[in-house]
Amino acid sequence: MTAAATALDLAALEQQYAELKAQNLALDLTRGKPSADQLDLSNALLSLPGNESEAWRAADGTDTRNYGGLSGLAELRAIFAELLGVPVDNLIAADNASLSLMHDTIAFAMLHGIGGEQPWATHAAESGRPVKFICPTPGYDRHFGICEHLGIEMIPVPMGQDGPDLDQVRALLAQDPAIRGMWVVPTYSNPDGVVYPESAVRELLAMPAAPDFRIWWDNAYALHHLTDTEHPPLDVLALAEAAGNPDRVLVFASTSKITFAGAGVSFLAASTGNLDWYRSHAQFRTIGPDKVNQLRHSRFFADADGVRALMRQHRDLLAPKFALVQQVLTDRLGPAGIASWTVPEGGYFVSLNVPDGTAAEVVRLAKEAGIALTPAGSAFPYGNDPRDRHIRIAPSFPPEADLRPAMEGLATCVLLAAARAGNRSS
Amino acid sequence: MTAAATALDLAALEQQYAELKAQNLALDLTRGKPSADQLDLSNALLSLPGNESEAWRAADGTDTRNYGGLSGLAELRAIFAELLGVPVDNLIAADNASLSLMHDTIAFAMLHGIGGEQPWATHAAESGRPVKFICPTPGYDRHFGICEHLGIEMIPVPMGQDGPDLDQVRALLAQDPAIRGMWVVPTYSNPDGVVYPESAVRELLAMPAAPDFRIWWDNAYALHHLTDTEHPPLDVLALAEAAGNPDRVLVFASTSKITFAGAGVSFLAASTGNLDWYRSHAQFRTIGPDKVNQLRHSRFFADADGVRALMRQHRDLLAPKFALVQQVLTDRLGPAGIASWTVPEGGYFVSLNVPDGTAAEVVRLAKEAGIALTPAGSAFPYGNDPRDRHIRIAPSFPPEADLRPAMEGLATCVLLAAARAGNRSS
Repeated sequence: MTAAATALDLAALEQQYAELKAQNLALDLTRGKPSADQLDLSNALLSLPGNESEAWRAADGTDTRNYGGLSGLAELRAIFAELLGVPVDNLIAADNASLSLMHDTIAFAMLHGIGGEQPWATHAAESGRPVKFICPTPGYDRHFGICEHLGIEMIPVPMGQDGPDLDQVRALLAQDPAIRGMWVVPTYSNPDGVVYPESAVRELLAMPAAPDFRIWWDNAYALHHLTDTEHPPLDVLALAEAAGNPDRVLVFASTSKITFAGAGVSFLAASTGNLDWYRSHAQFRTIGPDKVNQLRHSRFFADADGVRALMRQHRDLLAPKFALVQQVLTDRLGPAGIASWTVPEGGYFVSLNVPDGTAAEVVRLAKEAGIALTPAGSAFPYGNDPRDRHIRIAPSFPPEADLRPAMEGLATCVLLAAARAGNRSS
Repeated sequence: MTAAATALDLAALEQQYAELKAQNLALDLTRGKPSADQLDLSNALLSLPGNESEAWRAADGTDTRNYGGLSGLAELRAIFAELLGVPVDNLIAADNASLSLMHDTIAFAMLHGIGGEQPWATHAAESGRPVKFICPTPGYDRHFGICEHLGIEMIPVPMGQDGPDLDQVRALLAQDPAIRGMWVVPTYSNPDGVVYPESAVRELLAMPAAPDFRIWWDNAYALHHLTDTEHPPLDVLALAEAAGNPDRVLVFASTSKITFAGAGVSFLAASTGNLDWYRSHAQFRTIGPDKVNQLRHSRFFADADGVRALMRQHRDLLAPKFALVQQVLTDRLGPAGIASWTVPEGGYFVSLNVPDGTAAEVVRLAKEAGIALTPAGSAFPYGNDPRDRHIRIAPSFPPEADLRPAMEGLATCVLLAAARAGNRSS
């Protein structure tokens, strides 16, 4: 790469960057937020369920305006059981954030233990050593944030095109019984867009591990296809049972990027044992979820096909943005041969790998030019990208008119950082 | 009381009870749930904010359909800051349950500590002794449930007509530094309907205590007046500051019994230090609350007077039910002189004290006659009513046509249990 970098025309790039800064941009590629156009697709929610006679009544007669129902509304659970490929009895519909479900399940395991085992906090206090999670990297910064905040030690395992290095995962599980969790984004992973193949999933579900080892299976992008190749969710609960570890997975999903981000509905799917465990603790923090919002969503979707149709509308808005990202990266970075990037078939992100040791500098240059990127290293535990090369691009939120100059500017910053580094090392 | 009880006509009461059972009632006085009529008052929410042009936009321009805003929507916070008598900067608007805010603040204190002090879980593990809470009794079973579930030892302190015995509270705080919390329902307490006088509040706020001692100030019924004597909420944050303990109180409220139970909005008011502490932990479990629901509520209320007007409509529906409870208790239990009960000026409950040792029997007799009551002892830590005399009556949910036979039946059960006990002891 250094050879390629030294071939860059540093003076021309310095000039390009000066022109970029002169544009005084204020653009944002940081977060996987839906755009206003995407949110508009669900505006019918804003007047649902409506206040005609008993519009608040659920199919089973429940008055959604009153307390109760820890597992959520039956008709909404039926829709998402079909979409997620899990039995409806193994699916809970909850409040506005699957992140909260992930946090709470880990916090419950810390405070109370899971699977009848010792509370993780007790284990840590008695052994003087923290509980640990395996973290495929690059990964999702908010996952890592929960672990770090709760004092869970994170062990990074590199992601490949078919998921994390399974030999490393197996070896870690075999040698360290303090490992109690692992993060997996099985479909269009954040940020690499990897779809875990069924063979890898079967291996993960079958590996020997601590009895209270669980996989936090964040299927945030299960339905978020960008191409005609629509990778369907695996029935991971059935696979876990077949592997002899029925309680190994806790499945999370939400409508945050289906309807409204932060005003949608979240889901937890798991074995009956795990759901009973969850409810046995959640019952002390809530009498039940916002059932009116769940009813609102089930009326809006009507059925699983309603969700699928909505997701195709999202794809129509998102695919051109992802195509634009690919086009700019190919046109601007392709010839230099100094960077690589992912070509996701779904999800919300593109991973861009710049020359080693330059990612932080690229982010700094972009920021100075008015282009906000997630801090370099965000996709790694403790913010530590050992090669300082990874940048996560989130193209969903800005309109295309903003996305193009942002990507062009980012490309300029990548090239300039590489050229400067190449210049220094030559 | 036993003398009065022995004067009861046991044979006549046995006959009355047989007739009661023959009615095959199926009535429920268990929970403080709003009635369908009350919920109807807020049905306009069901089609708000509406999907006209940009109806989703908040006053400050925020797109409520997208992520963000850990403190909640400004316009809704302004309304409830006025109603709760706290500065708007010291008020967070959150999701659908203040119970969750109470649970989470305690769980955060367990896992992370509060006020810069040691995590409570660490204290418990290292000292081998649990953290403790002072629990005025009778109190709210869900408060006690959180404590018991998290391994917090509860110390009951009896409630009087002006709040808990402050001498006991002061002595406990002085002698036991493991006491880190206290439950207070300051306005129309659950279940006794007590309004804490300002003098008692000032004392509680000034007492010497551990630096991380906090009062969980659950103002669930702050606006829930039943008479023209509308006890206003105290500005407890200012009082705490004046007492030299600005961080002592965490104030909770919600619209669960203002709009929809479980589909409303919750609030946390506290010092800046406490709110920063809360946000520093909550940010790992949520990107923000359901702002669409907060916007829906602020549009529905319009302003603080809108809430006040709504609460008068609630009163119009609730006051006749509370009057009916008083009437039946007075007519049926007054002459025998064996029981006492509260006459609340607000809130959701009536406390009925039956002869010592008979509450569990009353609940059993009522259940057998098809009248569901909260289990005897529910209002006490660990379900332990030392005198076995307290029964919580929740008259809000059933229509008056059901409430009257339920109360008549309850009165029969009280008299019968007293007569049987008197007969045994004579």
